[in-house]
Amino acid sequence: MQIALAGGVGGAKLAFGLAGIRGADELAIIVNTGDDFDHLGLRICPDIDTVIYTLAGIANPETGWGIRNETWSFMEALERQNGETWFRLGDRDLETHITRTNRLAEGATLSTVIAEIAEALGVSIRILPASDDPIRTEVVTPDGILPFQEYFVRHACTPPVEGFLFAGAGTASPAPGVIEAFRADSLDSIVICPSNPYVSIGPVLAVDGIRAEIQNRTVPCIAVSPIVGGAALKGPLAKMMVELGTDPSPMSVAECYRGLLDGLVIDSTDADCVLLLEESGLAVLTANIVMSCDDDRRRLASEVTAFARSLA
Amino acid sequence: MQIALAGGVGGAKLAFGLAGIRGADELAIIVNTGDDFDHLGLRICPDIDTVIYTLAGIANPETGWGIRNETWSFMEALERQNGETWFRLGDRDLETHITRTNRLAEGATLSTVIAEIAEALGVSIRILPASDDPIRTEVVTPDGILPFQEYFVRHACTPPVEGFLFAGAGTASPAPGVIEAFRADSLDSIVICPSNPYVSIGPVLAVDGIRAEIQNRTVPCIAVSPIVGGAALKGPLAKMMVELGTDPSPMSVAECYRGLLDGLVIDSTDADCVLLLEESGLAVLTANIVMSCDDDRRRLASEVTAFARSLA
Repeated sequence: MQIALAGGVGGAKLAFGLAGIRGADELAIIVNTGDDFDHLGLRICPDIDTVIYTLAGIANPETGWGIRNETWSFMEALERQNGETWFRLGDRDLETHITRTNRLAEGATLSTVIAEIAEALGVSIRILPASDDPIRTEVVTPDGILPFQEYFVRHACTPPVEGFLFAGAGTASPAPGVIEAFRADSLDSIVICPSNPYVSIGPVLAVDGIRAEIQNRTVPCIAVSPIVGGAALKGPLAKMMVELGTDPSPMSVAECYRGLLDGLVIDSTDADCVLLLEESGLAVLTANIVMSCDDDRRRLASEVTAFARSLA
Repeated sequence: MQIALAGGVGGAKLAFGLAGIRGADELAIIVNTGDDFDHLGLRICPDIDTVIYTLAGIANPETGWGIRNETWSFMEALERQNGETWFRLGDRDLETHITRTNRLAEGATLSTVIAEIAEALGVSIRILPASDDPIRTEVVTPDGILPFQEYFVRHACTPPVEGFLFAGAGTASPAPGVIEAFRADSLDSIVICPSNPYVSIGPVLAVDGIRAEIQNRTVPCIAVSPIVGGAALKGPLAKMMVELGTDPSPMSVAECYRGLLDGLVIDSTDADCVLLLEESGLAVLTANIVMSCDDDRRRLASEVTAFARSLA
């Protein structure tokens, strides 16, 4: 059994690959909920939905979020009514948010609702939120603290970042199944997907007990670098690293996960980092980590899994 | 100033006609809220939306409810997820329900939210819910009591009716503006639109004080018959009348409104009822009351208004 920690688009792609080479009982994907927020009265869980949609094979390949062959009548009506249109909600995607909001209002937990939505979409792999309790990532900027989606979508990641807060993480408990997964006898490896260490994996690690489970691991934990050739494949990670005073490099990724990793998978482009990383005590696998198609995802998943096993 | 009481499609059509011949300050439409219900966590107000959409010129002419040029991606996703699909919600229509639900959750009253939605859609005529307090129409059948939408949509009006309950009406207060409209110095007439007397107008009259305002009126109150030639133009009214042991006729309509009317507008088809109605003390106008196009609506609105004035 394998655990994958995942956030947004890159994480979902590798999770898709891992799901393709693992049976339903052989993979648990623990997903970031720090991006979650309430919008127009609906509970939106961007990272969880991206993982579910990607595994269900219905993700929109162009946007990286939402559902493919989407329609936008709801947004057109919202624009016409001068509503809040900065966060785009497609008509098909809306069904997920309405169903989730309704089930949560009925008293169901987030992990139950996620399991229901995943099952209805034919996804048999276990997708676990880091916590059923609310965690809200906030971005510290020179002009004040912004809720994550305000920073990420409304301000298009423009404000320079000074740090991050994970409101609620201190009192949040791991969702049912999370700690059990880390302690399963059959666990053979932990994979941190190529997601943003600060705002995708950071909130997961901030949940009480999850970081400790990885620190106390008895199986290899490896990460796949979200930085390739000094840039992030998607999202504001490289910009954030510069603003936080560090190079956008695999070394900075390793630094984010200090004490948690046995190995790091980096892109062949970054082969010049191997020595430095190895000197810091990490095993390193260089591979083509850019996933352009489903075959790439499965190939990288196989290489990552073999690498992890080699460290056991 | 004129007051119109309205329920579903027929009521909305005449309200459209009245709005076309009255200025924004010269008409208040008091609308049934007994059909309202919560579905998928959203507050749905079918009659209010039909009136707003009709006045805004965006109503779906084929269905009689919802918005024209609608798309159905949300419903497709709901079907795929095996959700509750018996109540059809279009993608554009959904925006109204989400906005309303969100505003109500924020603490806004129903009448405030309706005013906001109407304004955003360019409707300047005052549309008032009968009450801001919940009123829930229930249909008494041999097999038990059904919430209205269960009866109306889910069971397609199939169960025979034995009576109706308006849960909450006994303690509901008229919405702000309703009593003021009845007592306005400028009020010249009250028009009960061609809506179902039992389930569209009944809940309005059941709100504490509204029936008394009409009983104590100092201006003419007239109704337009929703029955033409022994049938209802739309909906289950004729079937209900038979099940309740009365003929589907203008006389039965007049009986529903006993003590509330000075006059009744009936279709030319039903001219044979004129004598009986006049013997019961009502003034009668025969007209073509079938509204097939916008011109029909305005023509009938003019005739109805002139008839009401003639009774002053």
